[in-house]
Amino acid sequence: MDKIKNFQKILNKKQIKAYIIPTADYHNSEYVSPFFKGRAFLTGFTGSAGTLIVTQDKAYLWTDGRYHIQAAKQIENRPIVLMKQGNPGVPTIQEFLSNYLVDQDTLAFDGKVMPTDTVLDLIKHLPNINIQTDEDLLQDFWTERPNLPFSFLYKLETFFTGNTFSEKLIRIREKMQEKNASVHILTSLEDQAWLYNLRANDIEHTPVFLSYTVITQEDCYLFIDSRKLDKAIETYLKENKVVLNPYFYFYEFIKNFNQQTILVDYRQINYSTYLNIFENNTLINHPNPSLFMKAIKNEIEIKNTKIAHIKDGVAFTKFMYYVKNNIQTSSSLTELSVSEFLLKQREAQEGFVDVSFNTICAYKEHAAMMHYSATPATNATLKPEDFLLVDSGGHYLDGTTDITRTLALGPLSSTQKLHFTTVLKSMIALSEAVFLKGVRGMNLDILAREPIWKLLIDYKCGTGHGVGYLLSVHEAPNGFRWKVVPERNDSAEILPGMITTNEPGIYLENKYGIRIENELLCVEKDTNEFGEFLGFETITYAPIDLDAIDKKLLTTEEKKWLNQYHEKVYEIVEPYLTEDEREWLKEYTKAI
Amino acid sequence: MDKIKNFQKILNKKQIKAYIIPTADYHNSEYVSPFFKGRAFLTGFTGSAGTLIVTQDKAYLWTDGRYHIQAAKQIENRPIVLMKQGNPGVPTIQEFLSNYLVDQDTLAFDGKVMPTDTVLDLIKHLPNINIQTDEDLLQDFWTERPNLPFSFLYKLETFFTGNTFSEKLIRIREKMQEKNASVHILTSLEDQAWLYNLRANDIEHTPVFLSYTVITQEDCYLFIDSRKLDKAIETYLKENKVVLNPYFYFYEFIKNFNQQTILVDYRQINYSTYLNIFENNTLINHPNPSLFMKAIKNEIEIKNTKIAHIKDGVAFTKFMYYVKNNIQTSSSLTELSVSEFLLKQREAQEGFVDVSFNTICAYKEHAAMMHYSATPATNATLKPEDFLLVDSGGHYLDGTTDITRTLALGPLSSTQKLHFTTVLKSMIALSEAVFLKGVRGMNLDILAREPIWKLLIDYKCGTGHGVGYLLSVHEAPNGFRWKVVPERNDSAEILPGMITTNEPGIYLENKYGIRIENELLCVEKDTNEFGEFLGFETITYAPIDLDAIDKKLLTTEEKKWLNQYHEKVYEIVEPYLTEDEREWLKEYTKAI
Repeated sequence: MDKIKNFQKILNKKQIKAYIIPTADYHNSEYVSPFFKGRAFLTGFTGSAGTLIVTQDKAYLWTDGRYHIQAAKQIENRPIVLMKQGNPGVPTIQEFLSNYLVDQDTLAFDGKVMPTDTVLDLIKHLPNINIQTDEDLLQDFWTERPNLPFSFLYKLETFFTGNTFSEKLIRIREKMQEKNASVHILTSLEDQAWLYNLRANDIEHTPVFLSYTVITQEDCYLFIDSRKLDKAIETYLKENKVVLNPYFYFYEFIKNFNQQTILVDYRQINYSTYLNIFENNTLINHPNPSLFMKAIKNEIEIKNTKIAHIKDGVAFTKFMYYVKNNIQTSSSLTELSVSEFLLKQREAQEGFVDVSFNTICAYKEHAAMMHYSATPATNATLKPEDFLLVDSGGHYLDGTTDITRTLALGPLSSTQKLHFTTVLKSMIALSEAVFLKGVRGMNLDILAREPIWKLLIDYKCGTGHGVGYLLSVHEAPNGFRWKVVPERNDSAEILPGMITTNEPGIYLENKYGIRIENELLCVEKDTNEFGEFLGFETITYAPIDLDAIDKKLLTTEEKKWLNQYHEKVYEIVEPYLTEDEREWLKEYTKAI
Repeated sequence: MDKIKNFQKILNKKQIKAYIIPTADYHNSEYVSPFFKGRAFLTGFTGSAGTLIVTQDKAYLWTDGRYHIQAAKQIENRPIVLMKQGNPGVPTIQEFLSNYLVDQDTLAFDGKVMPTDTVLDLIKHLPNINIQTDEDLLQDFWTERPNLPFSFLYKLETFFTGNTFSEKLIRIREKMQEKNASVHILTSLEDQAWLYNLRANDIEHTPVFLSYTVITQEDCYLFIDSRKLDKAIETYLKENKVVLNPYFYFYEFIKNFNQQTILVDYRQINYSTYLNIFENNTLINHPNPSLFMKAIKNEIEIKNTKIAHIKDGVAFTKFMYYVKNNIQTSSSLTELSVSEFLLKQREAQEGFVDVSFNTICAYKEHAAMMHYSATPATNATLKPEDFLLVDSGGHYLDGTTDITRTLALGPLSSTQKLHFTTVLKSMIALSEAVFLKGVRGMNLDILAREPIWKLLIDYKCGTGHGVGYLLSVHEAPNGFRWKVVPERNDSAEILPGMITTNEPGIYLENKYGIRIENELLCVEKDTNEFGEFLGFETITYAPIDLDAIDKKLLTTEEKKWLNQYHEKVYEIVEPYLTEDEREWLKEYTKAI
């Protein structure tokens, strides 16, 4: 019998009309460790985003445009209805529940895996529904559930981070004072890793550790499994007067707060946290002070991140040389084998820590699935024809990278070249943006989207996302997206020091996918009587495949941009290449 | 003694700490009749937008970027502080009041000239302030205050409007039912004129009449000075079962509502209206159903509007021919004399009703003031040099127009040509936009702004506004603007049938101003697997001065757009020209 059917028996027994399983851990992380992958366990859909709602007789899976194709394939023949989020006529989760549930029905979920704002909003729209949040129904059902993650913490020195923990703590306490908050509860993992200048490996490819933090003007409490701390880290934390407590003691601890003014971000703290503090205290719902501090990189972080991008550019260039030079003669290149080769190039770089996400190496129609990940079952053999899309990135001690290139493996049709060149035009248009301070991604997004929209094609995702510093490769609050998606929290003003990806694309189901992705550092341009003008500096250094470009379609300005970019790529990357690679790069970065 | 000082005496006597005088009538109209021009009376600033706050010892005038230069000139040496709205560091009215007023202070204004949402928002942010809204302090102070406006109503036939009054009423009642509203109160003047297919002349250049409307499922009540209705209009209204009542009886009438569910738009109904109904009824705050019905023009309105634009194009072309051909030889051309000539060309067109706003005819540095209006005192003589900016429009029975052209009256510098050509590039970029349904002006605005921002220049206003059908030349809810300005309500999705101006510009204080303005009709482009694509059709037909263009700065695509546009202008306008004018137009619309 299908797992879903078995799970529904529990709902029937407990008289629960609908049970929500989001993709989240106790910290509202985007990527989660295996312990939290209940949605994937129940549905078979392995994408990084999706919400499952199981009712007593049906099951519904919401996922966004990046995953519509993949999810449909993975849940085929399962008793699950795919809800293509964002498509016309598809109800949101809230709309669905308002419609589905009737008075006094019970809706349940584990309060620890749902953000407070989502739940409060649900409650507002479901006024006569019983909400039950104290039980994780997967706990008994999922017999072979993985353990909570375990990894050792390590410290990033100030020449990597630019600021010490105590400097950061002072800035946070200043913000607390501004808001008259006596307590600040920080639960998001990236913010805590940033604050302490500590990293670990609790979530695959996201170097964080499961913990909670409570800050007052006098003390700083860290709730964490203490076995993750070696002697040196323990000493470091003690020297900085951090009070250590067990991970799950957090919920007991915060219950004791009384008549405090607590600064929390309802988008980040889970609903169980909220339930423990809301009655006896005054809550200030405000973005975590660390959100913007972390997103606006300091000078040291910027300098280091550029070094990380040089290493990444060298790795990618060697990879591209390898693929381009072997595709004609070798019949043994596959999606997985070339991914492995790329990984080796990154591993050879000093300070390499991990890849920053699962490499997307997608040949031909595989690339139409935006977040395809090759498995031995799907692994395609590469031939000297069509496109290969490679979206990958690295975590280095110097920072995190994210780069996509689409390679022509053989001759292309004129339509393929039109599509590739249009994606390039889109990418260039956003790279060259000049804008007044105050502008947000929703203002800028169309610069990238317009050339593609003019072909009556759309890509069903944002144009770009913020990138952390040896942290999450998707970092709030900056991004490029034309609609506000509240739960993504990526619509902030674009400010100097923020790093955001620029990755327009064209995806044709069952045909091919094209994406070109550079990272953009926001920089100051000029301040005059009209205001403060900002712009971008491209900090990704790797060739854009000239074989795929129809240069007749580029304007003089666009050719100038490309030629200058390639000149810079050559200059930066060539010192680290072999003679053959250098000759090849010279050719692939030549002016057109 | 300064008027302001005298007015402050009243405030002192009544112990009012601050008194607000916005620019509004009882109907939240953008332009107001002289009775309501108290802010201009007190300050001398004659622009169409601005809010005055008088405190017991100071006075502050807020106005937006269009008027910063003009307002500064007009209030020079007066005891008034100019608050340049939108500039960094300038507090909003609310921020100012929160700061200025202390507990139990009294803030006052006439509740009939302040929209409900503004007041409710103020109250929320000024929790311990007394708000007094029942007195218009100007009433006794302003001894020579003009009367309330008086003009006769006239009817627009269905071959102009496309829909009858009763068809429109049915659609509104359907929307009321959808919202479970038993009553709908409609106070905005444009919406009422649209609903009844009636027009008048109560506000200069805005063909509306002062009235209130109350709609139930059975009845429709119109509150209006009955002397404005001739026999035919009275019969028409009676035939349509409209119940007539005196204008001011409205406030008495609505007091009687009890336990009704009333659909009202808090952005439109004034605060006195709200005070009369909020206690005993359930209010649904929602945009007036007529808002989108009016903005999305029907096929007849679109057909007619295009005819109006042909007439306007003919008038403008004759004007441009006249100016271009006389500037070398005549020394008697002035801003006012050529405006007069332009008016004559419009008046010669069939179905011409009025200009749609005060013509802006601004020579050289005058044009840096975006909404400059020439007076005998400022009237500049035109010389065969520099730019002349002409922003004008007409009300025809076939619709309303708004067009700006900037003419080179003589040789231009290369910087002037660069600026003109850049404004043209901006205008073309927005004209050519293709976008998915759901897109708003805030997404599209940057297409026009980017070429100008790349020169590190900004124009301190939106890129465009909706246009009514023989109604207000500024019509909600569509517009192009990168920031949401709630009180403008111009951030709606751009939908097929909406008409919006496209008017980027460059304004250099004390030098010159350049603006090129066409109107854009939103049209469907295609619907495919990626969604519903929309675009624009340009419906303004008048030459763009080739003498001011540096064609080296235009891309091939841009030249193609310009040449096709000029070809169309010639084809549409030439049948209505004299032989000489036709020859000239041929030259001024030739391909470049």
